Amino acid sequence: MKKVVLLRHGESTWNKENRFTGWTDVDLSPAGVQEAISAGKILKDNGFVFQKAFTSYLKRAVKTLNQVLDIMDLDWIPVEKSWRLNEKHYGSLQGLNKAETAARYGEQQVLVWRRSYDIAPDPLSMDDPRSPRKDIRYDELPDAEIPLTEALKDTVNRIVPYWQDTIFPSLQQYGQIIVAAHGNSLRGIIKYLKNISDGDIVSLNLPTAVPYVFELDDSMTLTKDYFLGDPDEISRKMNAVANQGKK
Amino acid sequence: MKKVVLLRHGESTWNKENRFTGWTDVDLSPAGVQEAISAGKILKDNGFVFQKAFTSYLKRAVKTLNQVLDIMDLDWIPVEKSWRLNEKHYGSLQGLNKAETAARYGEQQVLVWRRSYDIAPDPLSMDDPRSPRKDIRYDELPDAEIPLTEALKDTVNRIVPYWQDTIFPSLQQYGQIIVAAHGNSLRGIIKYLKNISDGDIVSLNLPTAVPYVFELDDSMTLTKDYFLGDPDEISRKMNAVANQGKK
Repeated sequence: MKKVVLLRHGESTWNKENRFTGWTDVDLSPAGVQEAISAGKILKDNGFVFQKAFTSYLKRAVKTLNQVLDIMDLDWIPVEKSWRLNEKHYGSLQGLNKAETAARYGEQQVLVWRRSYDIAPDPLSMDDPRSPRKDIRYDELPDAEIPLTEALKDTVNRIVPYWQDTIFPSLQQYGQIIVAAHGNSLRGIIKYLKNISDGDIVSLNLPTAVPYVFELDDSMTLTKDYFLGDPDEISRKMNAVANQGKK
Repeated sequence: MKKVVLLRHGESTWNKENRFTGWTDVDLSPAGVQEAISAGKILKDNGFVFQKAFTSYLKRAVKTLNQVLDIMDLDWIPVEKSWRLNEKHYGSLQGLNKAETAARYGEQQVLVWRRSYDIAPDPLSMDDPRSPRKDIRYDELPDAEIPLTEALKDTVNRIVPYWQDTIFPSLQQYGQIIVAAHGNSLRGIIKYLKNISDGDIVSLNLPTAVPYVFELDDSMTLTKDYFLGDPDEISRKMNAVANQGKK
C-alpha cells in the first residue's frame, strides 16, 4: 500500500490579516508554526515515515514542511521544491484585504474571484513590482509560463502535469511521501485524484495544517482518503477558511 | 567569479555536553540556533545570494542551513543532502564525554583519536544499536560503504569524490553555493581545495557557524579564501574547538 499526505501550510501572517496572498512570499505566523508542529506530531504518532517530500517555492509551505520533518526526525529526507506547487496567483488582488475588497466590490464579486473555476482576477502588469518577473526565483521560467493572474482552472492545469510527471512516479518508487503546499494547488491534486467536477472543487475548503491522507493499492488505485485529527477541530478550521471572503 | 561558502553547524546539545558525536543525530542547542541566525545575517549583509545548497543527513547541519536560508529569504532554493557530508564517524567513542575519555585514556590518546590523520577509534560492531546499519536513512548504502569508525583520512576519502562529482559541477553551473556540514567533512573539502598536507590538516580548527568563503576565478582556480565576521570572535571560537579534548 502507498500513502501520500497532502498538507496545507499553517496560518501565515497574511491569513491573519485576511489579505489575498497568492505568490506573495509571506511568513508563517507563530500560530502557523504551532500548527505545523502539531501536524508533525500527529503524523509521527500515526506511524508515518516519509521517504520523500515536495513543496512549493513559498516559505510558508517550505517552513511548514521543515517543522513537520523535524518533529518526525526526518530532517534528512530529500525535499523537492517547485513553483508548480505555489498557491493560485491572485493577480492584482495580491496584497489587498479580503473584507475591504468585499465591501468595495461586493461579496459576490469576491466570491467569484476566490471561488469560480475559470474567472481570474485582473492580471498584474509584467513590470508591476509584484510581478514574478521581478523575482529571481522565477528567472528560469519563460515569460509564457509566468502567471500574472490565475483562475483555479489555470492552477489545476499547471499542477496536474507536475503530479503526473514527478510526484506520482516518486510515490510509485517510495512507499510514503508528503506534499506541503497551498489551498489551491492542493485542490488541483485532489480534483485530479478524486475526479471532482469543476463545479464541486471550488467548494472544497481544505483546513490549514491538517494532514490529508490518500491511500493507494499496489495497482496505484485510490482506495481511501481521510484527514488525521479531531473531526470537530477540522470542521471548525474548514468553516474558518470558507468565511474569509465575508465583510 | 564563483563563490562557495563552507559553514560548520552551530553548537549542538552534545558540543555543549562535550561528548563525541560523529554520526549521532543530535539537535542544535538554542545557542546553536542563534549562531546559525547570525551566520545568515552576515551572509545577507555581505550580499550573498546562493542558487544551491548542500548539507549532510544530520539535523544539526540541515537545521543550521534552514535557518541561514530563511534569514536570507532563500527558503526556496534547491537543497541536496548526502551522507558523504556527515561528520567523521567516531566509532565506539560515539556518546562518550571527551573530558572523561581523556581522564581515562589520557589526553594524548584522545588527541590521537581526534586529531591523527589515519588512526581511527575502535569500530562499532555491525549490530551495535549505534550502528548506521540500524538506521533507515542508510538503508540504500551497501555494507561495504557504511563506516563503523573513521580516521580523518577515511572521511576525506568519502568527501572528495562528492566534491568532485556533485558540488564542483554545481559551482560551475551556478555562481554561488553553500555547503553546511561538519568540522571534519569540511576539513576534507578544505584540504582538497588548498592542497593541505595530511599533517597540517589535523590542526585546522574550524569555528562553528562562521561562513568560510572560497572565491574561484572563471577558470575555476582558487584565488582567495577568508572567514566572514569579527576576527576576535573567530579566533575565540577556534580556540574553544581546539580545547575540547582536554580534561
